[in-house]
Amino acid sequence: MTVVEAPVPVAEPSPAPAAEPERTQQGVAIICYSGELEKTWAAMILASTAGAMGMPAKVFVTFWGLQTFVKDGKRVTGQNWMQKMLSVMSRPGIKHRKMSKMNFLGMGPWMMFKLAKQYGVASPAELLEAAQLMGVEFVPCQMTMDMFGLTRDDLIEGMGEPVGAATYLSYVAEGASPIFI
Amino acid sequence: MTVVEAPVPVAEPSPAPAAEPERTQQGVAIICYSGELEKTWAAMILASTAGAMGMPAKVFVTFWGLQTFVKDGKRVTGQNWMQKMLSVMSRPGIKHRKMSKMNFLGMGPWMMFKLAKQYGVASPAELLEAAQLMGVEFVPCQMTMDMFGLTRDDLIEGMGEPVGAATYLSYVAEGASPIFI
Amino acid sequence: MTVVEAPVPVAEPSPAPAAEPERTQQGVAIICYSGELEKTWAAMILASTAGAMGMPAKVFVTFWGLQTFVKDGKRVTGQNWMQKMLSVMSRPGIKHRKMSKMNFLGMGPWMMFKLAKQYGVASPAELLEAAQLMGVEFVPCQMTMDMFGLTRDDLIEGMGEPVGAATYLSYVAEGASPIFI
Repeated sequence: MTVVEAPVPVAEPSPAPAAEPERTQQGVAIICYSGELEKTWAAMILASTAGAMGMPAKVFVTFWGLQTFVKDGKRVTGQNWMQKMLSVMSRPGIKHRKMSKMNFLGMGPWMMFKLAKQYGVASPAELLEAAQLMGVEFVPCQMTMDMFGLTRDDLIEGMGEPVGAATYLSYVAEGASPIFI
Repeated sequence: MTVVEAPVPVAEPSPAPAAEPERTQQGVAIICYSGELEKTWAAMILASTAGAMGMPAKVFVTFWGLQTFVKDGKRVTGQNWMQKMLSVMSRPGIKHRKMSKMNFLGMGPWMMFKLAKQYGVASPAELLEAAQLMGVEFVPCQMTMDMFGLTRDDLIEGMGEPVGAATYLSYVAEGASPIFI
Repeated sequence: MTVVEAPVPVAEPSPAPAAEPERTQQGVAIICYSGELEKTWAAMILASTAGAMGMPAKVFVTFWGLQTFVKDGKRVTGQNWMQKMLSVMSRPGIKHRKMSKMNFLGMGPWMMFKLAKQYGVASPAELLEAAQLMGVEFVPCQMTMDMFGLTRDDLIEGMGEPVGAATYLSYVAEGASPIFI
């Protein structure tokens, strides 16, 4: 989620569309929306591969996706009881993602990690680290941070400044291809 | 969903690919596919922010997403019993979206709306209204309307003419970036 | 999923970004990630419509999506017990997709197919066949094949060589618009 900076409803579209500058920035602008294990994996594979290819890549982390980027040690996050309850119901951290189906109280993820290891596939946590080292930028959504009561200190090291949807869309306006995961 | 206008299977690809004209139309072409609360929110944030930035934005509303755009007063929609049952099982309207998880018989959404209000985040219904006022066009999928038995009168005011996938893909061919939500 | 070809973590981004060649290839590069009935339908409608329009279209089939492209006759796939169990828990093949909600032990899909037939909408299996005939290329993800223990013989006829995320992203670098479904 991201704060829409005071969307003042106006009666007609802006006369001068300012949002289509030269498309200088290419590459991908991934929205990491989901907190599920499989989609986290998909997002990290695309991000780290783009990094390895030298392809510009930014990852905008929002909604349930932001829980993935909470430090591993953090167990409860949030300022008020509702925010705390949300973090308790769904444990944060990239190592604690659940599968969208066939989770079987953790047996599904256990099998996936076992199969991944057997076939030499890196885990989401390893891929995240590789992506960061290769210059992929992960930026948290300001609005999600507000709504979940997350602070910069709750998040893993190396993330960018929190931004809103307008900043994300400016990447697209500059030519990056959006991928919503 | 959208009717594929009589996809006559031919034995080889068309010799003259007509679908890549000059990329004159930029901006985003959002597919609003999901009827879930959080994804509806994400789609409305992107649409209204694009509108506020003067970035061209079209929203193609299809599958479960179309239920979101049914007028608030409508309780049962459809022509036959199957279509009516679908609308009864999942109440239409943007104010009645359920969360993809942690719905807790409505407590999840209640908490989300409470947190949103506390942090000054507009609701999906408010963002939709803002987006429409700022020139974002919402177009319903003809095939979904047929399959769910929806009429133009069932849908909110201000939506465009129902179109199919070919029209949606023509936006992409002209340069709009697809975002499937 | 796809193998990240040995992502050697380096301390800084590559000096010469090689991933942004001339954008010669346009069209769409669909990621068919989900195995759900509705999303399978959405992906097949977009793919077959793009094919009918003569718009270049590639479909990268990964994660749960790959189960959709297993031959209809195959009931159990995989080399070890974990892989076999996954195929048993979720029956492979395009004719056996389940709905993401309201599946009702198969009544939901039955209603959807009945409504589709009534309104002249082609089934996912028919759309897939049409798409292939019209030149849309379906390429399986090598890593998913490894992790699920799938062989080329398990998959339907006419699919391309298995590739990884780097190949997929090269389509995007060449100008194809990504659509993650």
